[in-house]
Amino acid sequence: MGRITARRPIVRVRGPHTSSRPDTLVVEEPLEIRVSGTPLAVTMRTPGHDVELAYGFLLTEGVVTDSADVASARYCDGVDEDGLNTYNVLDITLAEGVPPPPQGVERNFYTTSSCGVCGKASLEAVRLKTDHPPAADTTTVHVDVLAALPDRLRQAQTVFDSTGGLHAAALFDRNGRLLVLREDVGRHNAVDKVVGWAACSGRIPLLGTILMVSGRASFELVQKAAMAGIPILAAVSAPSSLAVDLAVESGLTLVGFLRGPNMNLYARTDRVET
Amino acid sequence: MGRITARRPIVRVRGPHTSSRPDTLVVEEPLEIRVSGTPLAVTMRTPGHDVELAYGFLLTEGVVTDSADVASARYCDGVDEDGLNTYNVLDITLAEGVPPPPQGVERNFYTTSSCGVCGKASLEAVRLKTDHPPAADTTTVHVDVLAALPDRLRQAQTVFDSTGGLHAAALFDRNGRLLVLREDVGRHNAVDKVVGWAACSGRIPLLGTILMVSGRASFELVQKAAMAGIPILAAVSAPSSLAVDLAVESGLTLVGFLRGPNMNLYARTDRVET
Repeated sequence: MGRITARRPIVRVRGPHTSSRPDTLVVEEPLEIRVSGTPLAVTMRTPGHDVELAYGFLLTEGVVTDSADVASARYCDGVDEDGLNTYNVLDITLAEGVPPPPQGVERNFYTTSSCGVCGKASLEAVRLKTDHPPAADTTTVHVDVLAALPDRLRQAQTVFDSTGGLHAAALFDRNGRLLVLREDVGRHNAVDKVVGWAACSGRIPLLGTILMVSGRASFELVQKAAMAGIPILAAVSAPSSLAVDLAVESGLTLVGFLRGPNMNLYARTDRVET
Repeated sequence: MGRITARRPIVRVRGPHTSSRPDTLVVEEPLEIRVSGTPLAVTMRTPGHDVELAYGFLLTEGVVTDSADVASARYCDGVDEDGLNTYNVLDITLAEGVPPPPQGVERNFYTTSSCGVCGKASLEAVRLKTDHPPAADTTTVHVDVLAALPDRLRQAQTVFDSTGGLHAAALFDRNGRLLVLREDVGRHNAVDKVVGWAACSGRIPLLGTILMVSGRASFELVQKAAMAGIPILAAVSAPSSLAVDLAVESGLTLVGFLRGPNMNLYARTDRVET
């Protein structure tokens, strides 16, 4: 699509020296995901791999369980004021018999019927919703394999180098072999694209895999991993309390502050061989 | 509230050495914002300054224009299964005559009536919605003041040091004096808390101020600054293409990759004195 990066004029200040020059930026554009013509969500994302993004979003939100639940995905024909297709609206048709999502998908994970919305309710909602709980996955990974992942992630990142503006998510097997990497302005989008890639190629649940992310591990990222059946999530930076709680609850191995041979293990540490 | 950090048992790996110990994590919990009893949005946030967060969210989403539009804010009385108030649901009552928000506030900024949703539509929606366009603000700031901000931000961050898990947003005046700093697991929440603090103390529009954020500058953050009338936004990391476009469109000065005396200027560079 050629819309992953864009050039803009900037003023560069380096101490006392200033210069005007074009700079390369990561592109951010809205993507509206529709189901059978009804708008479901708008996400600010980096264009590219949009069908995977939609598949991954629908799967990790519990709307579909695998790619067989999706009949088709197509960009709407609409055009902007210059007569060009924006490629920013994707309409998904579900397979026959798959119930449409309730409106306001972001509320599915929370208890809104009472005032008691809390972390606990969020944890239980994920546990109830996933068809692929990672708890039973017997995969193990050697600590030396984990130690090598940050470098492999960085080496595989192509757009980050030119813009500095992208989150990355990558899927590895237990021997550290890279299966897929996706970059996006939104960390949740990068993970959705990885999960969507797996869904499109019939790999759900993602038994025996390691999901590595370039930033922090939030509740939302652990949720997405748990929904896809990924047993091990590794992050370069810190996890939150609720991310750790959900990892414990889901039986998912959570690795944080992964920087070469140094790392913290927050849940299901038995999967890590030392 | 004492819920900003939490302790969890972890396994710490440092090369060949492993040890079990408790570690401090940043707390992440859902906050449901209701308007007159109707759920409007759920955000995953770090507890604390929730009323400011709700004010800032409502203001930067265009539901209210200043604190006079809000009649009251209170936590719902509901309890979790242990009989404790979760403090995770905040109900806002708008002042008489203020129209309630349409359902699905996140869609306000996009054109969903046609297939043409695009960055251009997003830019125009912000331009039309803000009551406080920063374009006319004649504030200038010396490049040396900007150069000092990252250190001041970091020094003022208290929770980050113990957890490594927080985004920060801080408001400075044009002389580099810190007005307020907020930390949160979500970068948008940190900005909402800063804007909400300003709204609660009658400082909207935030003429003559500089908003500094610890991470990247996304479209969403520029949008929030523009809605609050902030003329200068500075970020430690990269902006996206749409963030730059919105800054240009709104007349907001956007500074990225701000690292001491080195920085990039992306829009309204005339406000920066060198």
